Amino acid sequence: MIGKQIYALAKRLWSLNRSITGDGVRKTLNIIKEILPSLRIHEVPSGVKAFDWVVPKEWKVISARLTDPNGKVICDFEENNLHLVGYSVPVKKRMRLSELQNHLYSLPEQPDAIPYVTSYYKEHWGFCLSQMERDRLIDGLYEVNIETALFDGSLTYGELLIPGRSEEEVFLSTYVCHPSMANNELSGPTVATYLAHWLGSQKSNRFSYRIVFVPETIGSIVYISKNLDDLKSRVFAGFNITCVGDNRAFSFLPSRSGNTFSDIVAKHVLGHMCGDYKAYKWEDRGSDERQYCAPGIDLPIASIMRTKYGQYDEYHTSLDDLTNVVSPEGLDGGYWAIRLAIEAIERHCYPKVKVLCEPQLGKRGLYPNLSTKSSGVEVKLMMDLITWSDGTNSLLDIAELCGVPVWKLYPIVDQLASHDLLDLIEKPSVPAF
Amino acid sequence: MIGKQIYALAKRLWSLNRSITGDGVRKTLNIIKEILPSLRIHEVPSGVKAFDWVVPKEWKVISARLTDPNGKVICDFEENNLHLVGYSVPVKKRMRLSELQNHLYSLPEQPDAIPYVTSYYKEHWGFCLSQMERDRLIDGLYEVNIETALFDGSLTYGELLIPGRSEEEVFLSTYVCHPSMANNELSGPTVATYLAHWLGSQKSNRFSYRIVFVPETIGSIVYISKNLDDLKSRVFAGFNITCVGDNRAFSFLPSRSGNTFSDIVAKHVLGHMCGDYKAYKWEDRGSDERQYCAPGIDLPIASIMRTKYGQYDEYHTSLDDLTNVVSPEGLDGGYWAIRLAIEAIERHCYPKVKVLCEPQLGKRGLYPNLSTKSSGVEVKLMMDLITWSDGTNSLLDIAELCGVPVWKLYPIVDQLASHDLLDLIEKPSVPAF
Amino acid sequence: MIGKQIYALAKRLWSLNRSITGDGVRKTLNIIKEILPSLRIHEVPSGVKAFDWVVPKEWKVISARLTDPNGKVICDFEENNLHLVGYSVPVKKRMRLSELQNHLYSLPEQPDAIPYVTSYYKEHWGFCLSQMERDRLIDGLYEVNIETALFDGSLTYGELLIPGRSEEEVFLSTYVCHPSMANNELSGPTVATYLAHWLGSQKSNRFSYRIVFVPETIGSIVYISKNLDDLKSRVFAGFNITCVGDNRAFSFLPSRSGNTFSDIVAKHVLGHMCGDYKAYKWEDRGSDERQYCAPGIDLPIASIMRTKYGQYDEYHTSLDDLTNVVSPEGLDGGYWAIRLAIEAIERHCYPKVKVLCEPQLGKRGLYPNLSTKSSGVEVKLMMDLITWSDGTNSLLDIAELCGVPVWKLYPIVDQLASHDLLDLIEKPSVPAF
Repeated sequence: MIGKQIYALAKRLWSLNRSITGDGVRKTLNIIKEILPSLRIHEVPSGVKAFDWVVPKEWKVISARLTDPNGKVICDFEENNLHLVGYSVPVKKRMRLSELQNHLYSLPEQPDAIPYVTSYYKEHWGFCLSQMERDRLIDGLYEVNIETALFDGSLTYGELLIPGRSEEEVFLSTYVCHPSMANNELSGPTVATYLAHWLGSQKSNRFSYRIVFVPETIGSIVYISKNLDDLKSRVFAGFNITCVGDNRAFSFLPSRSGNTFSDIVAKHVLGHMCGDYKAYKWEDRGSDERQYCAPGIDLPIASIMRTKYGQYDEYHTSLDDLTNVVSPEGLDGGYWAIRLAIEAIERHCYPKVKVLCEPQLGKRGLYPNLSTKSSGVEVKLMMDLITWSDGTNSLLDIAELCGVPVWKLYPIVDQLASHDLLDLIEKPSVPAF
Repeated sequence: MIGKQIYALAKRLWSLNRSITGDGVRKTLNIIKEILPSLRIHEVPSGVKAFDWVVPKEWKVISARLTDPNGKVICDFEENNLHLVGYSVPVKKRMRLSELQNHLYSLPEQPDAIPYVTSYYKEHWGFCLSQMERDRLIDGLYEVNIETALFDGSLTYGELLIPGRSEEEVFLSTYVCHPSMANNELSGPTVATYLAHWLGSQKSNRFSYRIVFVPETIGSIVYISKNLDDLKSRVFAGFNITCVGDNRAFSFLPSRSGNTFSDIVAKHVLGHMCGDYKAYKWEDRGSDERQYCAPGIDLPIASIMRTKYGQYDEYHTSLDDLTNVVSPEGLDGGYWAIRLAIEAIERHCYPKVKVLCEPQLGKRGLYPNLSTKSSGVEVKLMMDLITWSDGTNSLLDIAELCGVPVWKLYPIVDQLASHDLLDLIEKPSVPAF
Repeated sequence: MIGKQIYALAKRLWSLNRSITGDGVRKTLNIIKEILPSLRIHEVPSGVKAFDWVVPKEWKVISARLTDPNGKVICDFEENNLHLVGYSVPVKKRMRLSELQNHLYSLPEQPDAIPYVTSYYKEHWGFCLSQMERDRLIDGLYEVNIETALFDGSLTYGELLIPGRSEEEVFLSTYVCHPSMANNELSGPTVATYLAHWLGSQKSNRFSYRIVFVPETIGSIVYISKNLDDLKSRVFAGFNITCVGDNRAFSFLPSRSGNTFSDIVAKHVLGHMCGDYKAYKWEDRGSDERQYCAPGIDLPIASIMRTKYGQYDEYHTSLDDLTNVVSPEGLDGGYWAIRLAIEAIERHCYPKVKVLCEPQLGKRGLYPNLSTKSSGVEVKLMMDLITWSDGTNSLLDIAELCGVPVWKLYPIVDQLASHDLLDLIEKPSVPAF
């Protein structure tokens, strides 16, 4: 079960302090590079413009500690990087609890969870802690000691290109900017890593693959701004890989148009893997598809997920971990859902039967020669595949017409092609949007 | 509440003896002209051809009275103009009750109502009375005294043109040919009058408005025959204004195609004003949309109504009055439904976001800078408007995609446009049919 | 009731030993030729190629008998031609019951039925008998005596061309290859015969008709291979006529595209003849539509049926006979369903009203002149037909829009056309597929 390997990678990446910039991202990418040696790591300097945005200063944390009037350490970044509000500026001062409260974040409804809070674009500082911890705080002077740096550095992302026989590309994107978060972070880059590893190990892929590991939002915007022409001219399908690690559900979020090849493939795969998957709408979006499918960008990016961000209690808290939420089984399901989708893309074609009228399957040993009341039941699927193979229906269309998962047709297609009964026409891929 | 002004006008017009020709129409139009000084009153002579029809003789009533054997006046036109069958020819004679019965009209199912009956295109005379009255008639000789005239005169209609920045026109039509009838007559011209007054008082409308007050059927046919080229080349939306005065329901009757811009706007407005409005089909038509949407005419005319003609018991009887059926509240609702539709037409555009990828709303103060578990909820509608603003969705489409009334988007559109984030593209308006 | 004549013909054809070749077919066609003198009977020699197929050897049966150890005749072809597996090779030998069992066919679930079994394309022999009979077989040596011949002969089919004013064709196909089977065989050719007889007796048909009586599968494949260009360039509608003889249900099987003119007509007719007819899908196909609608052939052939092949217990057994299953009433319903469809095809046109705005029906005596509360109800259908007669809706579309069977519109269309109010535009017929 590949889920175990993926899980092991997630454990290794767990404690790195990822943010939208900084060494946490770099270390993460370098560990992934051990598995994907062709991964290229890019640095984009602070201050570079990307459409309506600017690459922010790089953030570095040396230490961060909140100490109570008795000298007891309440929050320590060393112990859990979620304690520090992301992008906190340096602070060293003493203050009363009443003043401190404006910089504390907790969740009354989830008293044992540390929330995940950031302030990337406005200077701010703060500590996150459980509500239980916060309720126990005593009056008096607290010592705030945040040793961080915000400086002209760079934003880091990883990119892997796996060339195929065609220059047409499938685009996979995942994000690396959340510290210590399992389903809504590490499931994404770890599953993406092993999908990339599988793709790279194939003898020859039909399509080329572009796989990126970016900080969410600013990272995808930067990536698009640097690669817009290539993306728009080559990418005809793709997925944003996020929240693919728990074993509680499968779900789907469409592209903005809702009707791209990616959407069609994803719904087919999920429908056959798990009939009652949860289908979200574009209005439920929340990750990098917001950029990839933005007006004028219009890439065909859908999301195949397990339990979606924002739809489970542990989301964006310390409870979204590798024990309670993410499991090898969960990761395995996420991996296979996307892999089956990629395989369906690789085998995308328009079968066309090579004889007029029905072929005589009997003389090829593919059809029972004795006609009785119930003959033909066994070869029904083959006959149905043939009747729909008119060169206008894609193999996926045919699977839908036959009511079977497309992967059930692969061996039949191969058998008919080996009897020279089927042409598998490859048309230029579906144009984006 | 504008409904009160509209109601006052309806009371003023109540007792005029409107028919498809004659002084009742002229007087009605002259009173409306007091509110709309630019109204032009047209006269079309009897005998003029209009497609398959001919303008009939003008009808004038001096008096009409039915007297029983005891000299008791049974029906007097002076008392209620519904007593006389419309277009009755002059008669002065005595006859037995049994013979008279062929010229009496009443409604057994509504014994206290005087029915409304006409015979425009075949010479005829008759009296209408309540079934209760009729049941009390005694045997003997009755005196019929109808002093009317049918002569070569003219058909009268009113027309108001309110020019806008564009020559493209919105067409509003209402009818003025029913005597003493409230919902199925006076609600139409009175609401139309105050809509025209509002439009005329605007500093600058985007579209031009063509508003007509015509006798039903023959009047609209005559109007079309004289203005066909202008109507077909300019009108891209419009409404037939009828039955907009009672407070019991909202309803909708589509254009013949069912799919014009008018249909889309009307359904959006009614759906958001009143979720359970009654949607009729073209087969339920019955007013001037029969002509405006006829094959070869094909104007995009839909009907936004309160309770539709033929769908309430009081219809075409003396009970359809300003006490039982029509009220200021009813007229107010009819006025605002059509006004919201016109406003949606005026603001019709294709918003297009001016930056690639999502704009950074935070730096403009339009987005919270602190990202917590539930951030962004408040600006969801703004973000949804932006994501759909690709230049292909109309503002109305976007309202539907967001599940809100289009008027809820106006302030957001204005705010984003003021930040130079949105182009509001005005395409040539939707072609009719 | 024409069903009685059709039933009489079926009785006459009952006992002939039809198969995919041989004298049973020839005799059947010659009897049909008595009713349809213009029927041409074609012979296609064994060995002729037809796409992926080859015309098989001709099969002839002299006698076939199975005798038990006591000399009792168990199966005799003379008594029931279903006893012999179709295309059995000659055999004369004795064998034990245990060996014989491999050549016996029966139906455990239908113990009193003789099944219908064939082996056209692999040399084989066998006997069919009821399970009850089989259960009574005693141990010992059985005598198998099958006197048949398989020789280079020919495949026989019948073809009738009925020219119309247009060269565009309606194609009717039925099959003649099942011995002693009533609904799933004789209902088809007998109903087709009387439809052809009716068509031939018309003074002048608008369209031409091509009607074929072929052995199923191989016969239709051969026919297509010899007439492909004519079929593809001329046929714009048609039906496969099968299972039209029992009185238990109506059903419909679409063409492969599901959207041809034949499909539309068939669904309209069945919907109005019998609201709850059974609608099958293309995946339920099983007769010659498999060839006519195959990829690259793509003829617009649908099936209007009573109870469909494979959907009734008696199917492909000796129980599918003229007593239990097929009746004059059943055949009558099958005949009329297809005849109404053909009539709808013959009258297919795009009505267009010849005046602008509504015509004034009153002056033509087509509309009541007195307008009262409920006037116009009687002429509603005429007004609806007029309003939809814009030259873009077909008469069939209009019937659907009005919610009536198209045949209810024929007299109204004729009346309006006689008043010169309607053009009946004949467009080139709907292209196949």
